[in-house]
Amino acid sequence: MPQHSSPAAAGQDPFGWLDVRREERERAGLVRSLRPRQATSPLLDLASNDYLGLARHPEVTAAAAAAARRWGAGSTGSRLVTGTTALHAELEAELAAFCGFEAALVFSSGYAANLAAVTALSSRASLIVSDADNHASLIDGCRLSRACTLVAPHADPQAVDKLLDQPPGSYASALTVTDALFSVDGDAAPLRDLAAVCRERGAGLLIDDAHGLGVIGAGGRGAAHAAGLAGEPDVVATVTLSKSLGSQGGAVLGPARVIEHLINTARTFIFDTGLNPAAAGAALTALRLLRGEPQRADRVRTVARDLYQRLTAEKLTVVPPDAAVVSVRAPSPERALAWAARCRAAGLVVGCFRPPSVPDGISRLRLTARADLTDEQVAVAVRTIVDTA
Amino acid sequence: MPQHSSPAAAGQDPFGWLDVRREERERAGLVRSLRPRQATSPLLDLASNDYLGLARHPEVTAAAAAAARRWGAGSTGSRLVTGTTALHAELEAELAAFCGFEAALVFSSGYAANLAAVTALSSRASLIVSDADNHASLIDGCRLSRACTLVAPHADPQAVDKLLDQPPGSYASALTVTDALFSVDGDAAPLRDLAAVCRERGAGLLIDDAHGLGVIGAGGRGAAHAAGLAGEPDVVATVTLSKSLGSQGGAVLGPARVIEHLINTARTFIFDTGLNPAAAGAALTALRLLRGEPQRADRVRTVARDLYQRLTAEKLTVVPPDAAVVSVRAPSPERALAWAARCRAAGLVVGCFRPPSVPDGISRLRLTARADLTDEQVAVAVRTIVDTA
Ligand SMILES: Cc1ncc(COP(=O)(O)O)c(C=O)c1O
Ligand SMILES: Cc1ncc(COP(=O)(O)O)c(C=O)c1O
Repeated sequence: MPQHSSPAAAGQDPFGWLDVRREERERAGLVRSLRPRQATSPLLDLASNDYLGLARHPEVTAAAAAAARRWGAGSTGSRLVTGTTALHAELEAELAAFCGFEAALVFSSGYAANLAAVTALSSRASLIVSDADNHASLIDGCRLSRACTLVAPHADPQAVDKLLDQPPGSYASALTVTDALFSVDGDAAPLRDLAAVCRERGAGLLIDDAHGLGVIGAGGRGAAHAAGLAGEPDVVATVTLSKSLGSQGGAVLGPARVIEHLINTARTFIFDTGLNPAAAGAALTALRLLRGEPQRADRVRTVARDLYQRLTAEKLTVVPPDAAVVSVRAPSPERALAWAARCRAAGLVVGCFRPPSVPDGISRLRLTARADLTDEQVAVAVRTIVDTA
Repeated sequence: MPQHSSPAAAGQDPFGWLDVRREERERAGLVRSLRPRQATSPLLDLASNDYLGLARHPEVTAAAAAAARRWGAGSTGSRLVTGTTALHAELEAELAAFCGFEAALVFSSGYAANLAAVTALSSRASLIVSDADNHASLIDGCRLSRACTLVAPHADPQAVDKLLDQPPGSYASALTVTDALFSVDGDAAPLRDLAAVCRERGAGLLIDDAHGLGVIGAGGRGAAHAAGLAGEPDVVATVTLSKSLGSQGGAVLGPARVIEHLINTARTFIFDTGLNPAAAGAALTALRLLRGEPQRADRVRTVARDLYQRLTAEKLTVVPPDAAVVSVRAPSPERALAWAARCRAAGLVVGCFRPPSVPDGISRLRLTARADLTDEQVAVAVRTIVDTA
């Protein structure tokens, strides 16, 4: 044994503590495991984020296939080296134009786009005000930024205003960061009020529109667009290509100078391989389908409202949906898990969100509306959820 | 104007500071911009990380196309909800078996895999010892972990030993983190010595084998395998699917209990959409091609050595390559940029790495060997680089 001691003794199992954590999870009934699905399934899916039903649309999958054949299976490098194709540029131009922003930059995931946006728009000398229920990727962005991050109570513009009220010179810049639609409960952020507060205080506003694109606003242009904030000089939005657009990847949308700044400084852009061509091609075709068929966005919201009304009529506690996500309260993590399992046994897949993956510790079934669900499927889903409650 | 002052005054431009940064970049000659490439190009590519030339292999692109058609353009959700397909599970099983590890977990990028591995294998109470030249994704992982991170001088096991030597009880656990092959200079980490030091100190070892997979070790099984460390209980490796496997995505390889821990705790796994099927399918087929044609890995190393010897014979300063990356010193950022531009004008694409994207502030041309380069192409590349120096 060495005389100089070390964190753990020589020869000791350095990952032994993982077993302790596993036992804690087991005791708390919070063990997660993977359940690989097959290509086709008899189950009714109300769990995926494929809001417009485009992930398996023949034109979208054909575009993915064509892009892989034409451009290769991977982008082969950082976007700054060999990883930018004309396809990426086309996707960026059309995304920016559709959502109403000056410019766009595509990343390998929505997660990476959020890390980039938060870190690049702040510095050690900045103040960030972040909603308590923000998505993990925004929170990780705040942590990576090393800015002073103050967490604001959920969806509370007055609280944001107070937190932005700091002695002059305390911070070199200020940024408010919020999900447009919160991923767990599906409720909307008060974007207009937040923007007004930010303007009053000279702070930038970063909106994560992951669940807004394709669902909210004229023809699915997103929550930032719906709030009249798209293209404003002090507003930046992020979107993901993995939900309504049925693909993978993410993007930051904003003023050209913000995009240029990201190209030069964002670590998850510079040091990451560019999005694979199949994903870029699929997202571009999905975007064009959405543009051509704006009723898809209306249909998702109709389905969500329908789910809400029927479930509420059956005396379940449901959060009024502002977009596609319909959140049904469950009394405990164990009961939520058992409920979701009974749904599955009855042919319905629903999401089951419980600690530690929820900001508020509340367990729920998380249903997602899809534009391609029929009224009959909605009725079946509601019946199943009610019967298994 | 509000009396309560704010970080910036009301109505002030919250992103005005970005212009200051842009001017700084311009003065320093460090402005980056994107150069979208076309699907086919007459240029000779020595800049991509497509080491085995598989990104455009017809079987690989056909696998991407088939996977998109069969499974959809996106995975439609978190791996914990609807984002795990049987294809993901197959890829994980074959990757783990090929590289010699008990289990594997696939992520949407190598960047996300590194964030997950570092954060999940440490806690606030941990010590992390991190090589000074580690990849940005490992560094970001250290920052996110909130562990105490000590930066060790580059490739120096004795220094790592000293940093791991802490009073008993100072830390709950310890982890050493290193690139297997450093991405900028292409030099190898002293993995065996690092592993010995870690064992002596009871620390875990996390190896980023992004540039080792497909290039190093028997049939391209990676640097961890080559060092006899694959499958060891105290060793975890990460790989990317975006370089030798010509696709997108990343994976963590390690003991089953580590993988189970990641499934339950890694934020970039839980809160990120699963890898798109096209990328998973392409990576799986590329892996099978590599398994069937192990000479591809030998060929990359031969090409890299050949480039090194010929360039050195021409009196250029070149780092002896340990894998596929061949790093040629340039006298300054401006000269590096001008040199790379002259190469391009002469028909050769090379990487140009300069501050702030390099850990040591040194500018260089970064060449990458590829298995599918002919001897004649290598000769042309060398001639071009020498003539434009
Ligand atoms: C609000 C929100 N932001 C960002 C993301 C990350 O996007 P991606 O899965 O494309 O990485 C998600 C979901 O995954 C999300 O729900
Ligand atoms: C050493 C190293 N680790 C991790 C990564 C990230 O992998 P990916 O680009 O697949 O996200 C890279 C390159 O991009 C790398 O060079």
